[in-house]
Amino acid sequence: MKETLAQSRFFKVEKLEAFIKTAFMAIDMSEQEAGIIAELMADADLNGVDSHGIFRLPHYIRRLKTGGINLHPEIKVEREKSGMALVNGDNGMGHLVMKYAADLAVQKAKSNGVAWVGTKYSNHAGPASLYAKIPLKDDMIGLYVAIGNANHLPPWGGTEMLLSTNPIAIAVPAWEEAPVVLDMATTVSAYGKVKTAAQRGEEMPEGWMVDRQGKPLTDPNRAEEGFLLPIGGYKGYGLALLLGLLAGTLNGAAMGKDVVDWNADDVSVTNTGQFIVAISIESFAEIETFKRAVDGVVRSMQSSPTLPGFDKVQVPGEQSFAKKQERTANGIPMHEKLFQSLQNLASELKIEPLQ
Amino acid sequence: MKETLAQSRFFKVEKLEAFIKTAFMAIDMSEQEAGIIAELMADADLNGVDSHGIFRLPHYIRRLKTGGINLHPEIKVEREKSGMALVNGDNGMGHLVMKYAADLAVQKAKSNGVAWVGTKYSNHAGPASLYAKIPLKDDMIGLYVAIGNANHLPPWGGTEMLLSTNPIAIAVPAWEEAPVVLDMATTVSAYGKVKTAAQRGEEMPEGWMVDRQGKPLTDPNRAEEGFLLPIGGYKGYGLALLLGLLAGTLNGAAMGKDVVDWNADDVSVTNTGQFIVAISIESFAEIETFKRAVDGVVRSMQSSPTLPGFDKVQVPGEQSFAKKQERTANGIPMHEKLFQSLQNLASELKIEPLQ
Repeated sequence: MKETLAQSRFFKVEKLEAFIKTAFMAIDMSEQEAGIIAELMADADLNGVDSHGIFRLPHYIRRLKTGGINLHPEIKVEREKSGMALVNGDNGMGHLVMKYAADLAVQKAKSNGVAWVGTKYSNHAGPASLYAKIPLKDDMIGLYVAIGNANHLPPWGGTEMLLSTNPIAIAVPAWEEAPVVLDMATTVSAYGKVKTAAQRGEEMPEGWMVDRQGKPLTDPNRAEEGFLLPIGGYKGYGLALLLGLLAGTLNGAAMGKDVVDWNADDVSVTNTGQFIVAISIESFAEIETFKRAVDGVVRSMQSSPTLPGFDKVQVPGEQSFAKKQERTANGIPMHEKLFQSLQNLASELKIEPLQ
Repeated sequence: MKETLAQSRFFKVEKLEAFIKTAFMAIDMSEQEAGIIAELMADADLNGVDSHGIFRLPHYIRRLKTGGINLHPEIKVEREKSGMALVNGDNGMGHLVMKYAADLAVQKAKSNGVAWVGTKYSNHAGPASLYAKIPLKDDMIGLYVAIGNANHLPPWGGTEMLLSTNPIAIAVPAWEEAPVVLDMATTVSAYGKVKTAAQRGEEMPEGWMVDRQGKPLTDPNRAEEGFLLPIGGYKGYGLALLLGLLAGTLNGAAMGKDVVDWNADDVSVTNTGQFIVAISIESFAEIETFKRAVDGVVRSMQSSPTLPGFDKVQVPGEQSFAKKQERTANGIPMHEKLFQSLQNLASELKIEPLQ
């Protein structure tokens, strides 16, 4: 049965952030690192990415406690040229590794115009949009790609799940309009949405997954019996494969059959790969001119006449931006099942429960 | 009626290349520039991209003769930092502008590791894969995106055609296997395929286009009455939009409603934008190690068990690579309608006809 918003509890983002930070510190993470991760995770919830925020906390904690993620990583640059770097995350939390990588890309792009930073020995880092948006504050465009942390996608025409959803995110700043932020898996649905549906007891629409006979699979609790479908058929497969070669293989990170199923295994080092590109707008154009041009593109899309069944045309990032404003004002809704799992976590870690 | 291969003529790639070069020289293009374009165009046919090779010659010639494309452009770098450049193509042939941009990206990536080169005042440059593959010979990965030369895609839920198919191509070298080369439009079908279908008198499959009521459109001669569908619905729209901001808006090139319909207008300056990223593999990894890892990924995909209805799993670029070998041996097939249009062109330009 679908749980309604009326049945949810609401929490201010600061509450979630404080809870997350306290939870990580309770297992001996440094205050500074716990703070970085908590801010990113709570921001995911604030922006409406319910599948990639505090929902993941019990899993992260479990993996940190078993040693499957390194609590005290030494994140460092392994290779470097003026326009690129390869960061070794030392199996630390993906959020820490990617924050480090994104900040480095921005710093390098200041002098080089464009910089590409790859990661290896990273981990699940939450929603792709978080990192693509980091360069925005420096008047840069961000482009981020990650190897997903479990294979749910076979090559087109195949049945062996050799690929992950390998999401791509691109964030472009505007002048008066909200930034344009694309965050998409190369599959029709991200696997995180399947997990959220399962937790909420919701059915999946047809087209998200098929079973091993190629028939539609709509029960998220049977997700293990099938696989995700790529967007555009062989095109989405091709995109997942090529982005995987760039985010994984090029960085010496896991790709294809070497990807560890993060949902089934709390111990093995995932060697997750990601990359981020920071593009300094002022290298290409006068910043205000560019941002006003983006405003123009956004407005022309929004003012298109609509097809029957559509109220208005939206631009990527628009829903998330509206959700952020709404949730900043009214709090972040939390379903009972997630709330209970966080209360259990609090009791296990002997920290103050959420309230 | 579908024309069969048995009804086609076959030409060696050298024949096509020589014909193209002679045609451009007949309208006063320099021998060197005609040679560069002819090699790229013939390579498109050799690789099986029939919609983007010699098929486009009459159109290019027409636009060059009307002055819609600059016969004698001064292509130059307008802005530059160590990791990027913005190239002004001076409204020259897109092939020339993009060859210049790709060579520059490769040169910059040698010292910087990664380099991003954008273009403005460029033009239609043929298949995206041509340019993504240029860095391969220097042991680099190529990533190329272009603004398409006519808008056939509305924003998701809209009816106004504000976006082009904005193709993306990524080429990654392997050790023993063929390079992995993705070349995809962000629409289910490229518009070039619609044009080829119209020329061949073939129906389009459902799912390529819909009419303005949202109903399937399968007659390619009615293409003007509808629009292309994006891959993955709103995802493909988002990808087309964001790639357009990067390849168009960032470079000061046309994007969205400013895109000139190249098929309907032989005169207006298109101000086409593109970008290419060259990624030097040795900056990230030992070259042989990386290429062997790519071999491993390719082979694991190919050896996946198949779904009913599939003989084998393929990797992007595999069909094109096989076609290149087959066409190198047996020649490039040409349909009668295209052959006749090239004979007419030869007579108009007073050059030796194809034979």
